[in-house]
Amino acid sequence: MADQGFAQLPDPPYYAVIFSSRRNGRDEQGYGAMAMRMFELVQQQPGFLGAESTRDADGFGITVAYFDNEDNILAWRRHGEHAQARARGRSDWYQHFEIRVARVERAYGAARSDHA
Amino acid sequence: MADQGFAQLPDPPYYAVIFSSRRNGRDEQGYGAMAMRMFELVQQQPGFLGAESTRDADGFGITVAYFDNEDNILAWRRHGEHAQARARGRSDWYQHFEIRVARVERAYGAARSDHA
Repeated sequence: MADQGFAQLPDPPYYAVIFSSRRNGRDEQGYGAMAMRMFELVQQQPGFLGAESTRDADGFGITVAYFDNEDNILAWRRHGEHAQARARGRSDWYQHFEIRVARVERAYGAARSDHA
Repeated sequence: MADQGFAQLPDPPYYAVIFSSRRNGRDEQGYGAMAMRMFELVQQQPGFLGAESTRDADGFGITVAYFDNEDNILAWRRHGEHAQARARGRSDWYQHFEIRVARVERAYGAARSDHA
C-alpha cells in the first residue's frame, strides 16, 4: 500500500507552495479543526495535485501543497474560507510563518517494498 | 531573537530542494549523527542559502534546502560524503523518500514580535 504521507504527483513541471510555520502552542483544538477543514477544502480546488505536511514536537511545521499552475494557486489564495483561516492563523495560531511559491522542475524518489 | 527554525533567505529567485522522507524507525543514533554531519557540511557548500527541517512522531519529515542556483545543487549532490550518506539513507534509514527541485519565484511571511 502506498504511504499516505506522500503526495502522488505527475511529472514536472508543476508548482509548490512551501508553507513553514511555528505554532504558538495555543488553541490546539481550534487549530486542528481548521487544519482538517483546509485539507478537505484544498482537495476540491481546481489544479490541486497533492500535499505533504509534518510538524515536530516544538511546533515547527512544513506543509508543501502542489498545484498545476500559478493561477490555481492564486484562486485558492482568494478562496473566502481559506482567507478567513489565514487571518485566524496570523492572529491566533502562528508565531511565525514563511511562504515560498516555486516551480518544480525535477523530481525523483524511491520507496522500499521490503520490510526486512 | 530570530526563530532559528526559519531560514534567512534573500529575495527570490533562488532554488529549493524539497526532501520528503519516511524513516524506517531503525538506527536512530546513526541517523542522527549523519543528519547533524550533513547539516554542518551543507552550510559550507557554495551557494547554500539556508534550510528548514521538521519530522513528526510518525517518522515523516520534510527538509527544504535553499541554494542560489542549480549548479550548486548539483555540486552538493556530487559531494562524496553526501553521496555516501544518501546511499546509507536508501539502504538503512528511509522507507521512502521523494525529492523535488524547484525554482522559488515569490516569497512572503510574517513574524509576531509580541508574546501576548
